[in-house]
Amino acid sequence: MIHLAANEKFPKASDIKAAKDLIEKYAHKTPILTSTFFNNLFGGSFFFKCDNFQKSGSFKFRGATNAVLAISKEQKDFGVATHSSGNFGQALAMVAKMNGIKAFIVMPKNAPSVKYNATKSYGAEIIQCEPTLEARESTLLDVINKTGASFIHPYDDYKIIEGQSSAMMEILDEISDFDNVIAPVGGGGLISGTILARNYFAPHINVIGAEPKDADDAYRSWKSNSFVPSVNPQTVCDGLKTSLGKRTLPIILDGIDQIFTASEENVLSMMKLVWERMKIIVEPSSASTLAAIYENRDYFINKKTVIIISGGNVDLDNVPWKK
Amino acid sequence: MIHLAANEKFPKASDIKAAKDLIEKYAHKTPILTSTFFNNLFGGSFFFKCDNFQKSGSFKFRGATNAVLAISKEQKDFGVATHSSGNFGQALAMVAKMNGIKAFIVMPKNAPSVKYNATKSYGAEIIQCEPTLEARESTLLDVINKTGASFIHPYDDYKIIEGQSSAMMEILDEISDFDNVIAPVGGGGLISGTILARNYFAPHINVIGAEPKDADDAYRSWKSNSFVPSVNPQTVCDGLKTSLGKRTLPIILDGIDQIFTASEENVLSMMKLVWERMKIIVEPSSASTLAAIYENRDYFINKKTVIIISGGNVDLDNVPWKK
Repeated sequence: MIHLAANEKFPKASDIKAAKDLIEKYAHKTPILTSTFFNNLFGGSFFFKCDNFQKSGSFKFRGATNAVLAISKEQKDFGVATHSSGNFGQALAMVAKMNGIKAFIVMPKNAPSVKYNATKSYGAEIIQCEPTLEARESTLLDVINKTGASFIHPYDDYKIIEGQSSAMMEILDEISDFDNVIAPVGGGGLISGTILARNYFAPHINVIGAEPKDADDAYRSWKSNSFVPSVNPQTVCDGLKTSLGKRTLPIILDGIDQIFTASEENVLSMMKLVWERMKIIVEPSSASTLAAIYENRDYFINKKTVIIISGGNVDLDNVPWKK
Repeated sequence: MIHLAANEKFPKASDIKAAKDLIEKYAHKTPILTSTFFNNLFGGSFFFKCDNFQKSGSFKFRGATNAVLAISKEQKDFGVATHSSGNFGQALAMVAKMNGIKAFIVMPKNAPSVKYNATKSYGAEIIQCEPTLEARESTLLDVINKTGASFIHPYDDYKIIEGQSSAMMEILDEISDFDNVIAPVGGGGLISGTILARNYFAPHINVIGAEPKDADDAYRSWKSNSFVPSVNPQTVCDGLKTSLGKRTLPIILDGIDQIFTASEENVLSMMKLVWERMKIIVEPSSASTLAAIYENRDYFINKKTVIIISGGNVDLDNVPWKK
């Protein structure tokens, strides 16, 4: 049971700006691409903020940078630790390496091998566990007790949320006259950061979440205005299986304009279409936004929508449409 | 036997500038990406000019635009025709469609289905033939006789060469202090355009060609200072099988600084690495440049090199490392 953090305050506009200023020193300012094909397919104007090109292959590098640089020098000597199905572990490992800090990553045994290998290649120590939240948390606790490492939560941490908001801040630097921004919702770090940046700097823009139908806990949380956990969801979107956190949930309930869901079939066909037509590699979680748009085209017709492409970490020896 | 075009003159600086001005009205100004991974792997600074993001999925759109817009209004009524293993056919079909002109594309039966389907989707009439140069040429002649369409050669045409030079012109708009630019060599249109743009606007830069070892006709032509044809080459680089033309050969012999070749194995492993690490889809022909760099690292160490990524049209149901 998660309790709303009534006595905590959302990050301020100054926190969002500070995170952006810090992150731009370390991260790629990722390009925004357009595609005539998708404009025609969906009947609107679409702008793809390509955080699949971000360092470590996903937006997670942003939050990890902001969180790691916030810990004290003394704490840094003991390293950082987290549990992650992949992208956050990879990002934290890379940020730690760039800053000369040890990283301990608890990873479920069924994580894609490409994510395991990339995390390993950044020099992190990987501790494998059973693919349940309980196993992750108990293994992580062991690691922290043994090493003294600082736990960096993958999403339910204001430093992480502030960091993820930098994608939206960069978008606003380049385009301002758009109607919607859509991003996938897993633990809610990216969408929460996007909401906060929107709240402070572009309140006229709608923030929309996308989820697979088979992992629609954020959708159900939003509809019921209460926390609905994600319980062993079956989806190809391996980054979107987690539950919302006690910091991300209230930000989302307060600020989200819409959550759309999408079928597994449409996620996969949109993923393949993006590869084919845009020549960029996006992971299934990132294709959930396009699939959600495809299933809700009326909402987007003749509108300008920014799609945050969250990551591109895919096992190329096991592309999902070959299975 | 090809005769050097001694009585023809290379396109002038004003032609190169005019082509750039024309093409930027129709084509994407493609982004230039960087990758820490490849900088470390090769020990230099590398800039990826991503014409895999160009309309129709390759740089061929540039030349096709310049050539189609150069024909007279009267000729346009009869349409345009070409033979192409894929990318040029696709580009010509798209340019023709954008300008309300019929396109007739002669295509070998063994062209990748993704290229066949894309060409078809742009509304072109496709005429299939045996996969030999003779069959392509005789079939094309039939088509031209029947339809009155204007033949647009895929590379051996100054309007095409001028058009392809616009990629290098865009690079020079963004970066000027680099040492080398490397591009794949098939029929030689892209490298010829790159040489001309370099000759007129950045004479200090080295232009380097890349070829598969098993289709190294340009390398052998350069080494022998004479035309060496490409005879039924076996390479995964389906865009690099053609011989040089009578217009591209003298430009290359006059202006190329180096041609490096690469093994099939390295082409495929570099292709996969680009997909994995940069999250962009490049076709085998485009990976020949990275494989050539990999096999000749000494040349590139501590240098700044621009890599022209020529295209990204790949059959995703048959990625070459799965075979």
